Amino acid sequence: MESSTQNVAVLGLGPMGRALAAAFGPGVTVWNRTPGKADGLEATIAPSPSDAVAAADIVVTCLIDYPAVRRTLAAADLGGRTLINLTSGTPDQARELAAWAADRGVPYLDGAILTPTPMIGTPSGTILFSGDPAVHATVAPTLAVLGGRILHLGPDPARASAYDVALLDVFATATNGLLHGFALAAAEGIAPPDFAAFAAGIGALLPEMATRFGGRLADGRHPGDRSTIGSAASGIAHVTAAARARGLDTGMLDAARAVIDRAVAEGHGHEGLSRLAVMWGRTG
Amino acid sequence: MESSTQNVAVLGLGPMGRALAAAFGPGVTVWNRTPGKADGLEATIAPSPSDAVAAADIVVTCLIDYPAVRRTLAAADLGGRTLINLTSGTPDQARELAAWAADRGVPYLDGAILTPTPMIGTPSGTILFSGDPAVHATVAPTLAVLGGRILHLGPDPARASAYDVALLDVFATATNGLLHGFALAAAEGIAPPDFAAFAAGIGALLPEMATRFGGRLADGRHPGDRSTIGSAASGIAHVTAAARARGLDTGMLDAARAVIDRAVAEGHGHEGLSRLAVMWGRTG
Ligand SMILES: NC(=O)c1ccc[n+]([C@@H]2O[C@H](COP(=O)([O-])OP(=O)(O)OC[C@H]3O[C@@H](n4cnc5c(N)ncnc54)[C@H](OP(=O)(O)O)[C@@H]3O)[C@@H](O)[C@H]2O)c1
Ligand SMILES: NC(=O)c1ccc[n+]([C@@H]2O[C@H](COP(=O)([O-])OP(=O)(O)OC[C@H]3O[C@@H](n4cnc5c(N)ncnc54)[C@H](OP(=O)(O)O)[C@@H]3O)[C@@H](O)[C@H]2O)c1
Repeated sequence: MESSTQNVAVLGLGPMGRALAAAFGPGVTVWNRTPGKADGLEATIAPSPSDAVAAADIVVTCLIDYPAVRRTLAAADLGGRTLINLTSGTPDQARELAAWAADRGVPYLDGAILTPTPMIGTPSGTILFSGDPAVHATVAPTLAVLGGRILHLGPDPARASAYDVALLDVFATATNGLLHGFALAAAEGIAPPDFAAFAAGIGALLPEMATRFGGRLADGRHPGDRSTIGSAASGIAHVTAAARARGLDTGMLDAARAVIDRAVAEGHGHEGLSRLAVMWGRTG
Repeated sequence: MESSTQNVAVLGLGPMGRALAAAFGPGVTVWNRTPGKADGLEATIAPSPSDAVAAADIVVTCLIDYPAVRRTLAAADLGGRTLINLTSGTPDQARELAAWAADRGVPYLDGAILTPTPMIGTPSGTILFSGDPAVHATVAPTLAVLGGRILHLGPDPARASAYDVALLDVFATATNGLLHGFALAAAEGIAPPDFAAFAAGIGALLPEMATRFGGRLADGRHPGDRSTIGSAASGIAHVTAAARARGLDTGMLDAARAVIDRAVAEGHGHEGLSRLAVMWGRTG
């Protein structure tokens, strides 16, 4: 079997690199800048990135950013290896690293991991890849161990990264909204676990909203039959007032409110929330 | 049975008022400032708030804000009625309206609706109430038709509102993060339904995060074993760069990033994201 003949090296043992190495199994070779991060992993520890690369057919990088990937690979001879970068970054960075690999004749795929560490190696583990389909075909059997949803988006190496930044946008903003809610709840004397029980219910509304907003944006119709932008303007105004009354930072709320208020001022108060994506999408 | 003897009036027929009126059933009396909003509802339409109040034992207000509630009730004689306000607002506004009702000898409950209109009247319909427990006991059988999770939080009338503002904070910020993600995806040439499929998966992570963060904040421990604030700093930096490269408003991201960067600067880069709630909770 193809997959059993491909040796994998994982460069980077942060929480995600460790999860990837564990999923590849005990035949994996690992390297990390700071020693000691492989503790508890069944793996061969390489003393340098060059040694790790030398031991592998497939080199997986999972580091804090693209500059760290470039620094880590600077001295390694990638000849005959396939490079798969699972570090998050911008589409421009993915394009640049793909060009760097192409200059060296190194088969390259860029990937974006969409699930947290405990889901790696499980049916719900989701990773997007993009780049040369022929390269993907050769490594797909080996990558299959990483999760049940290993998808290839096509030849443009920046495509996975385009999804990644937009999804990380949702993740970062929603997570900080959740954390800000915990802060406001605490300021109101509500214990974190009491708040968590209801906050989980609010979070559970997001998947259906994502699907519905996707349909409405595709149609270009934004009915306000469930809830309107005008109602959201009123709601965010009193959330902001309550947060300000408790002395909390209202920066995220202020930024959202400015866009909601502009939508109302432009006559969209009776429309549904999906219309706000059009407002957020304005450039200039 | 107590519940069958209580007549209900719903003042306000926005999307939520209509959902409440439908759940109370055809015996309900309704009023709305702008006529025509009761179309399709089985209900008795009252010509004025005073007429609606006169027909009811329980008066439910569900309007855009507390000032609208005060204006709507200004001329009505609430004598012998119980007032239940399901309009969102700040804890201070709930306290003020409770005091206004107490001055008039009107039994009062304040409520916060935590679920969207399609869930009203279903097992997952969730509404928090607070105020005099004796008042809640008399109306509880009638309110039960609104959903499977009708909860009373105790005597402080502002308590439901305290939960409401903190939960609406999560909702407003997360929803706008989702909408901003759609905007960034569109700018990257990703069709809304294609993005929605993965955005729904990101949203689905929130309930577990809410529960986990609640536990960590209660313990005061913020391990970075799954993902760290340092990694989040790197991630939000490239999301912001990608959004800026496409000319999008980065206000929410900038506000979140400032707090994340401050956490890193203060030495919390190796800790988990729950630590950020402590940062957001700082006053001054
Ligand atoms: N954790 C998650 O839940 C998750 C989910 C989806 C995607 N991701 C993505 O996966 C990637 C890795 O994330 P992570 O959570 O494992 O941790 P991380 O904090 O983003 O990255 C840590 C890794 O980067 C290394 N590193 C940092 N600076 C370096 C440099 N200048 N040169 C070489 N190595 C350097 C660290 O080495 P040292 O140990 O020496 O500092 C460590 O191996 C990120 O792009 C992240 O966005 C993570
Ligand atoms: N919709 C939801 O999914 C949802 C979920 C949870 C909580 N809530 C809360 O439920 C409440 C009602 O929300 P909604 O979605 O039904 O719609 P809304 O847009 O917040 O409120 C619309 C209602 O307010 C009335 N109104 C506005 N200004 C008024 C004034 N000056 N005097 C009298 N009435 C006035 C409107 O009458 P006109 O028709 O005459 O304009 C209409 O009846 C809000 O507090 C909202 O936060 C809603």
